[in-house]
Amino acid sequence: MAKAPILTPQADDFPRWYQDLIGKAELADNGPVRGTMVIRPYGYSLWERMQSEVDARIKDAGAQNAYFPMFIPENYLTREAEHVEGFSPELAVVTHGGGKKLEEPVVVRPTSETIINEYFSKWVQSYRDLPLLINQWANVVRWELRPRVFLRTTEFLWQEGHTAHISYEDARDYAARIHRHVYGEFMRDVLGIDVVLGRKTARERFAGAINTLTLEGMMGDGKALQMGTSHELGQNFAKAFNTQFLADSGEREYVWQTSWGVSTRMVGGLIMSHGDDNGLRIPPRLAPVQAVVMAIKGDDAVVEAVRALGDRLKAAGVRVVVDDKTDTPFGRRAVDWELKGVPIRLEIGPRDLEAGTAMLARRIAGGKSPVQLDGVVETVAAILEEDQALLLAQSAERRAARTVDVTSIGEAVEAAATGWGRISWADLGPEGEAKLAEQGVSVRCLVTADGEVPDADDQPGNIAIVARAY
Amino acid sequence: MAKAPILTPQADDFPRWYQDLIGKAELADNGPVRGTMVIRPYGYSLWERMQSEVDARIKDAGAQNAYFPMFIPENYLTREAEHVEGFSPELAVVTHGGGKKLEEPVVVRPTSETIINEYFSKWVQSYRDLPLLINQWANVVRWELRPRVFLRTTEFLWQEGHTAHISYEDARDYAARIHRHVYGEFMRDVLGIDVVLGRKTARERFAGAINTLTLEGMMGDGKALQMGTSHELGQNFAKAFNTQFLADSGEREYVWQTSWGVSTRMVGGLIMSHGDDNGLRIPPRLAPVQAVVMAIKGDDAVVEAVRALGDRLKAAGVRVVVDDKTDTPFGRRAVDWELKGVPIRLEIGPRDLEAGTAMLARRIAGGKSPVQLDGVVETVAAILEEDQALLLAQSAERRAARTVDVTSIGEAVEAAATGWGRISWADLGPEGEAKLAEQGVSVRCLVTADGEVPDADDQPGNIAIVARAY
Repeated sequence: MAKAPILTPQADDFPRWYQDLIGKAELADNGPVRGTMVIRPYGYSLWERMQSEVDARIKDAGAQNAYFPMFIPENYLTREAEHVEGFSPELAVVTHGGGKKLEEPVVVRPTSETIINEYFSKWVQSYRDLPLLINQWANVVRWELRPRVFLRTTEFLWQEGHTAHISYEDARDYAARIHRHVYGEFMRDVLGIDVVLGRKTARERFAGAINTLTLEGMMGDGKALQMGTSHELGQNFAKAFNTQFLADSGEREYVWQTSWGVSTRMVGGLIMSHGDDNGLRIPPRLAPVQAVVMAIKGDDAVVEAVRALGDRLKAAGVRVVVDDKTDTPFGRRAVDWELKGVPIRLEIGPRDLEAGTAMLARRIAGGKSPVQLDGVVETVAAILEEDQALLLAQSAERRAARTVDVTSIGEAVEAAATGWGRISWADLGPEGEAKLAEQGVSVRCLVTADGEVPDADDQPGNIAIVARAY
Repeated sequence: MAKAPILTPQADDFPRWYQDLIGKAELADNGPVRGTMVIRPYGYSLWERMQSEVDARIKDAGAQNAYFPMFIPENYLTREAEHVEGFSPELAVVTHGGGKKLEEPVVVRPTSETIINEYFSKWVQSYRDLPLLINQWANVVRWELRPRVFLRTTEFLWQEGHTAHISYEDARDYAARIHRHVYGEFMRDVLGIDVVLGRKTARERFAGAINTLTLEGMMGDGKALQMGTSHELGQNFAKAFNTQFLADSGEREYVWQTSWGVSTRMVGGLIMSHGDDNGLRIPPRLAPVQAVVMAIKGDDAVVEAVRALGDRLKAAGVRVVVDDKTDTPFGRRAVDWELKGVPIRLEIGPRDLEAGTAMLARRIAGGKSPVQLDGVVETVAAILEEDQALLLAQSAERRAARTVDVTSIGEAVEAAATGWGRISWADLGPEGEAKLAEQGVSVRCLVTADGEVPDADDQPGNIAIVARAY
């Protein structure tokens, strides 16, 4: 197109493209308090769809939703030494309530392991009460020095799962189940992102965990984004909060625990995985709007036809919007739907109507061609399936094309300039990891030679995936 | 029953009955910070069902969900004089973030009119941007001196709708639409509570509103509970935040606004409306579990039969749980389901199986009788319908029986000892209202002689409904 681009091209300045898109597609605004964000209706509708898909999978995994207070007494945080060390620099502290100075300051939850364990220790008596599988959808606060909308915000929305189990093995298996079957399948099957499932090194572990499983996605600029994590907490919080159960043996034992979460950060990952210079591209299974039926002109027959087509698609289970706002020029509306990444546009004008066709524009595969109005429902369904698969394939292709095997720190840093490096963990080790960190490159995760999740950091053959990350 | 009661009987001590039930039915716990609460899974499942029903109705009314930060700069609150006066005594203030003292303290939202107007003033340019209809599901904080779980908590969950319109009439009509068609219909049709829809007096209005519409329910002890409100904000916040639009006429004008909310307080209202000495009674349309199929004993044929029946009911769209936990004595499980208010229990033991029947216990209408397994799906569906209507009828009967017409302040106070009084507002007036307040009785709302919502406080014939309230 000869027109001035609406967005800064990705190739010119990827971060600016991201900011432009968030504004132009009306996804979010910066909040008035530094690092906070206003999630606008279209951005929020993406999050709502993510919530509904993830929530169903969490419930299938047997966990129940609950809600714990966001105000945590400061002394709770200090009970688990690593945890408080990890989170204190990021805390927001309430010192006054109801017009008075509080006797003990209260912290706004950065995560809820501590307060949840306080209650688990009351609720769990015997092995019959286990496993205890709880999830909550909530806002959390971590004071961010370098905020970026959706990716790093002082307040963000997430779900946090917290479970207690009878044994190390049960907890380990449940953390792995959430990692693979809740998060992994959701991200591949719905978000269309070819995430790598791996294990964090000790350096990158959650504060208070004995193991952190992660899902890492490659963004459009080759950087990595941690899309979600699932932690084995061992008995660390159980000991800090005295969460014990009467075992079958008659002994009192500490429970074994997990915690796991995904957040509004996924919206950022979605944008940076699939977006292009014309805007978002939303995978059909996620899309709040899968198809838009547009009236090119405002004459009665056209408006009637777009509404009728909208009804037919809706009846067929397609999430559809009818755009008959013909007061606004057609071109502007089309660009806007393109920006918003709606997978299919069906455009109808008087000539199309006469021919019994609509012009079908595909946002994901690209291209535009006329379709018969008769068979349009089937066509739309087929394209949605096809384009869902296409996005995942493109995500996988990018990762394959931009990941290289490397054997030295120098090569690893070079690889991280445009994508990911794969390096033997036995060769790199924690010392090499520290050297990489000095250059802004981190070990995103460890995987086995077969690409599986290793059972231990020092498992022979482990590969470290290294990259720059958001 | 001769056994010691599980709950304090309502007639002995209604507030203690309420507390007992909340603990025994595992609805909630007190949080560690004064006035906060932990909503346990069963309590939360009631809230989730409320959310899903209300959310669908809000979307039908054209509003879209979004999310605004919970941290509000202190100076926003002070821009609308009545608003800050109303809310300052209840604020929680964050003074430290990320290890540093903040330059400007930040308030945790008690409600979001201020921060939302800040953005409305950016988003609204012309009359084409109106109406702007936004809703958010969020937690809010109001420091409570006399907290009570679900009814008055320092942190609670709610939805808050915020809209901007082109004219006074549009805003007024939308506030009324939410009041009647979103909240009123939900509370009657789903919660089964015969709420009164009325108008608040100036004394009881929301801080910053020009009119507050309310829904008042009569609880089991005759007291009133404000179940939800819908406000006309006039141009008060628009002026404070300079939210203007370019009108059709070419002039810049201030928008007209509404705000409206319902909260986790509704869970308290549900408990106190329908609960009895044996526990909760959940209206079928709301119930997370509409029917439980219980194995009386653990023999294989019985367990198989309850699972099969569970599958049949599920296939028919009934929200059903199979209770085959025969390690726990049957009586204890039955009492627990009763406490939790599940509308229908289907109990199957070896003898029932032989006879091709199940014992059906009705939590709402009461009674227990055998039903043929063959026709049980139809029976269950019919009972659920019947019991939904029964709860609403009982709620209406209670209100009729415990509401009396009075003509003096003395009589009004007497009426409020056991229920509600109705008194001519022309006779009572703001001075009489103040006198009532000294005795702990308030005007819950004004209604017309026909029971409609008046257009003004001083509309001739207005009746004040007076009561003690939670």
